[in-house]
Amino acid sequence: MNPQSILQLDRIIHEKGRFGILGMLAANPELSFTELRDMLRMTDGNLTTHIRTLQEAGYVSVTKSFQNNRPLTTCSMTAAGKKAFANYINLLGEIIQQTKPK
Amino acid sequence: MNPQSILQLDRIIHEKGRFGILGMLAANPELSFTELRDMLRMTDGNLTTHIRTLQEAGYVSVTKSFQNNRPLTTCSMTAAGKKAFANYINLLGEIIQQTKPK
Repeated sequence: MNPQSILQLDRIIHEKGRFGILGMLAANPELSFTELRDMLRMTDGNLTTHIRTLQEAGYVSVTKSFQNNRPLTTCSMTAAGKKAFANYINLLGEIIQQTKPK
Repeated sequence: MNPQSILQLDRIIHEKGRFGILGMLAANPELSFTELRDMLRMTDGNLTTHIRTLQEAGYVSVTKSFQNNRPLTTCSMTAAGKKAFANYINLLGEIIQQTKPK
């Protein structure tokens, strides 16, 4: 196993909470803040912090709008986020292959 | 994709530094502290902290001895560590499968 592979894992994505958010957004083009929070069983504060980190990395975009006069926050992956997530998953796949007993 | 899979990932193992240590110890029955530090390019302090966390989880055992009159610290995976690491890798494999576009 090549230790460099693990060191190369994108630290932004590797954190479990953010991995979960990106995993959900990879499967759904758009999710509301509430949907993400409930699916991932996160607190508002925890989700807000992770979304901000993903936004700052340019991986997730956030849109604020209104639905039935109530504010609605929706999240989706950016093109850069999709690319980074695909790279991360590929690298993880390689690491798993390397880890398997020969 | 099932978000519960990601939430189930062992937090002790998922941290990149510890993932690296266990990956190395999965491939080598025994490694010295110095070998691990150099392979993973960690500081002494960082490696010590991660090894302690892995020891407290019961995943790694540490042996202190002497070689050529100099202290030698060697690390290896315990049976529980091997089992937990195998479970982690299997779950990661499932997550990757779920993440692939249908």
